[in-house]
Amino acid sequence: MIDPRVASGLRDLLPAVMIPRERMLQTFRETFSSFGFVPIETPHIERMEVLTGKGAGSDEVLRQIFEVTNKGGTPGELALRFDLTVPLARFVAKHMDEVGVPFKRYAIGSVFRGERPAKGRFREFVQCDFDTIGTDSRLADAETAQIIHAALAAADVPPFTITLNNRKILDGVLETLELSGKSGLVLRSLDKLAKIGRDGVTAELARPAEEGGAGLSPDQAARILDFAEAGRGGPAVLDAAEASLGSNPRAAQGIADLRQVLHFLEAGEVPPGRVAIDLGLARGLDYYTGIVFETTVDGWERFGSIASGGRYDDLASLYTSRRLPGVGASIGLDRLLALLEEAGALKAATSTAPVLFANFPGVDPAIAVRLAARLRKVGIGCEIYPEPIQVGKQMGYGSKHGHKLAVIVGPDEAAAESFNLRSLETRHEDKGLAWSVLEDSVHGALELLDNGRLPS
Amino acid sequence: MIDPRVASGLRDLLPAVMIPRERMLQTFRETFSSFGFVPIETPHIERMEVLTGKGAGSDEVLRQIFEVTNKGGTPGELALRFDLTVPLARFVAKHMDEVGVPFKRYAIGSVFRGERPAKGRFREFVQCDFDTIGTDSRLADAETAQIIHAALAAADVPPFTITLNNRKILDGVLETLELSGKSGLVLRSLDKLAKIGRDGVTAELARPAEEGGAGLSPDQAARILDFAEAGRGGPAVLDAAEASLGSNPRAAQGIADLRQVLHFLEAGEVPPGRVAIDLGLARGLDYYTGIVFETTVDGWERFGSIASGGRYDDLASLYTSRRLPGVGASIGLDRLLALLEEAGALKAATSTAPVLFANFPGVDPAIAVRLAARLRKVGIGCEIYPEPIQVGKQMGYGSKHGHKLAVIVGPDEAAAESFNLRSLETRHEDKGLAWSVLEDSVHGALELLDNGRLPS
Repeated sequence: MIDPRVASGLRDLLPAVMIPRERMLQTFRETFSSFGFVPIETPHIERMEVLTGKGAGSDEVLRQIFEVTNKGGTPGELALRFDLTVPLARFVAKHMDEVGVPFKRYAIGSVFRGERPAKGRFREFVQCDFDTIGTDSRLADAETAQIIHAALAAADVPPFTITLNNRKILDGVLETLELSGKSGLVLRSLDKLAKIGRDGVTAELARPAEEGGAGLSPDQAARILDFAEAGRGGPAVLDAAEASLGSNPRAAQGIADLRQVLHFLEAGEVPPGRVAIDLGLARGLDYYTGIVFETTVDGWERFGSIASGGRYDDLASLYTSRRLPGVGASIGLDRLLALLEEAGALKAATSTAPVLFANFPGVDPAIAVRLAARLRKVGIGCEIYPEPIQVGKQMGYGSKHGHKLAVIVGPDEAAAESFNLRSLETRHEDKGLAWSVLEDSVHGALELLDNGRLPS
Repeated sequence: MIDPRVASGLRDLLPAVMIPRERMLQTFRETFSSFGFVPIETPHIERMEVLTGKGAGSDEVLRQIFEVTNKGGTPGELALRFDLTVPLARFVAKHMDEVGVPFKRYAIGSVFRGERPAKGRFREFVQCDFDTIGTDSRLADAETAQIIHAALAAADVPPFTITLNNRKILDGVLETLELSGKSGLVLRSLDKLAKIGRDGVTAELARPAEEGGAGLSPDQAARILDFAEAGRGGPAVLDAAEASLGSNPRAAQGIADLRQVLHFLEAGEVPPGRVAIDLGLARGLDYYTGIVFETTVDGWERFGSIASGGRYDDLASLYTSRRLPGVGASIGLDRLLALLEEAGALKAATSTAPVLFANFPGVDPAIAVRLAARLRKVGIGCEIYPEPIQVGKQMGYGSKHGHKLAVIVGPDEAAAESFNLRSLETRHEDKGLAWSVLEDSVHGALELLDNGRLPS
């Protein structure tokens, strides 16, 4: 016998997890589509060179790469993708003449990183990315945040906050402090503010250049941190920032851009309470150049951001000389589902069909097949128990899996062309209903159940 | 610059392909769910031992396996899955206590085979599998064919035929010829009848045992081929087979089982014209033991089967001592889409949203954002052009991508709270419609377009 375990760091997804997951993915697809984003798919396997080109992935990600070799192939040539951004960059470089700009694409798929296995960290996980390529438009910036809002709201995610910043504002702060050359190091430290606190960031910023640090004086660090900490809240923080930084053209541009985005978000009916400004939000990745976003579920900030992204100046510079600016975001499906599960916000059903037809011993199952086909035609999913075992056991199967109603046709009902309709939650049973009212009866009972008014 | 090509035998899927593909996958998911099948997902990466266990895959498939290694990992331990059946077997062996039987699962995902690259053959392709595990029921056999029918019909596949057989009948034929011990060899040859013709199969069956053949006499081969060729058609072929084979218990059981399945298919409203019997249909795979199916699109038989499967006695014997009989099928998404494309049955739109809002130079785009949000609320997808370029160019973008309508709000319309509604196909434009009738106007125009009555 071969041990049926999965490899270390990987996992099977069982129906109780998959059912809400599929529902959520479909919600995301419909939301992306409703804004005119189109799906693309790239292979899970890419040429190694494409994935490891300078700047394609961080050193950490490249250390975690999975190499792929087929029999007779040359080792080192192929690997599994570690995100959907590098494949997007390659895709647009290759197909830009065909797809044209603006190109609004979404992609949903597994990515692979050979991280050290740990609780809640898997070596294969799903990313849901959407990007608008080939435009510098503020409208596209705002739309990205609007879609994060629309997708999460449609997926019934509990109250959440989308936090915005614009990199240009922080760039302006660093310019006024004459620290522009150290921007990468400073922003990466600033990103850790929530995690390691003000003292931790100050210590990191002070680390001397010889040790790979930014070598900031305590005063410089304090001014950056003061600015970041004062810059959290509603649109009013932009006024304050303007007062202190308005003479710096980059910062002024960043502030104006953010105001424009807030204007569009209001027009898009994103509730103001769902949007926050955080002028210290840096997003570590070097390639962001304008707006940046993070999204946390209120009260569950410790789970980190469930939807993040930003604007970049040049997506595909590794693969084409054509400059392709864009803006996009990624929703972390697995993290979001883990959060919802821990918050008790996921329904635990393991059934996709609300109705279970009993397979009554001695009754021709073709009757159930015929009645079930009628219900499916009006959009009601039905499962027929495959074997004519004791009906009580069949009802137990239905209760265990979360079917709501059972339709039972015994020999007497078959002769009378009638059925019994049982609620699997309350065990209430309506008896002797005529086949002619099947659709209406089942529809009515499901409506009552959905409204919480169980027949009893 | 790094060359942005994909690795040999792999491909990018562009929006024109992905949009119908996503629609079809969603149709399949909804169909599987409407019969009570639940989704599961297993990792793309499996332990090598699981994939290469005796009988898990054919020698050919095992030669095509992609090995996976992460930095610091041991070579030879991991590989990419080559189908969804072996992972299903491992899954049920591992999780059977949790999921219970009957277990009706579907799974949709990429599988990988390092085949020699050729036109229309890819090293990564998608399988859509559904199986009912843990029951010997004829109802489950029939339901499998019923779902193939429901899924393909819902996906608007042109007229197709589901061909059925039961392995027990062929087993009975071989028993009467005292050839039971050669069943595997004979069935694999018989499977090639359509491809290599009667003479080809006869020659293959005659090949002597020393050369790995079945060593049949011309008379034995003729009797098998006569039986197979006479056994194609409607339910009447079962009567003929019964007359010639009825005394053989295995064949009689197979014939009775098929009749039961036809009875359930009729109850399930599968049109009789969509179902054919072919008593020579063998399906090469050794593990089928009862019903087998294949599905071809009428007139496109040369594409081969687009949905195939059958009943097996024991799914997971490599991984558990528990006997798990079942029945299932796999829809070949990529083959089906290639066929539909060649048959001209795929719409070529590259847009997911029917409405394009112009971004009129000099008009606040927030107006479009607000009106588009209203349309999305009533279920109409909208895209806003991200930049205020010349409106004619924006219309060109909409025409190219297959948007149906454009909403245009210029400075005059903005002042009058009105809009112009242009058909991007006919260029007909209704002018000066009030914002208050936006939803109704757009909805009405889309309905006219869908019904082919274009405003002109």
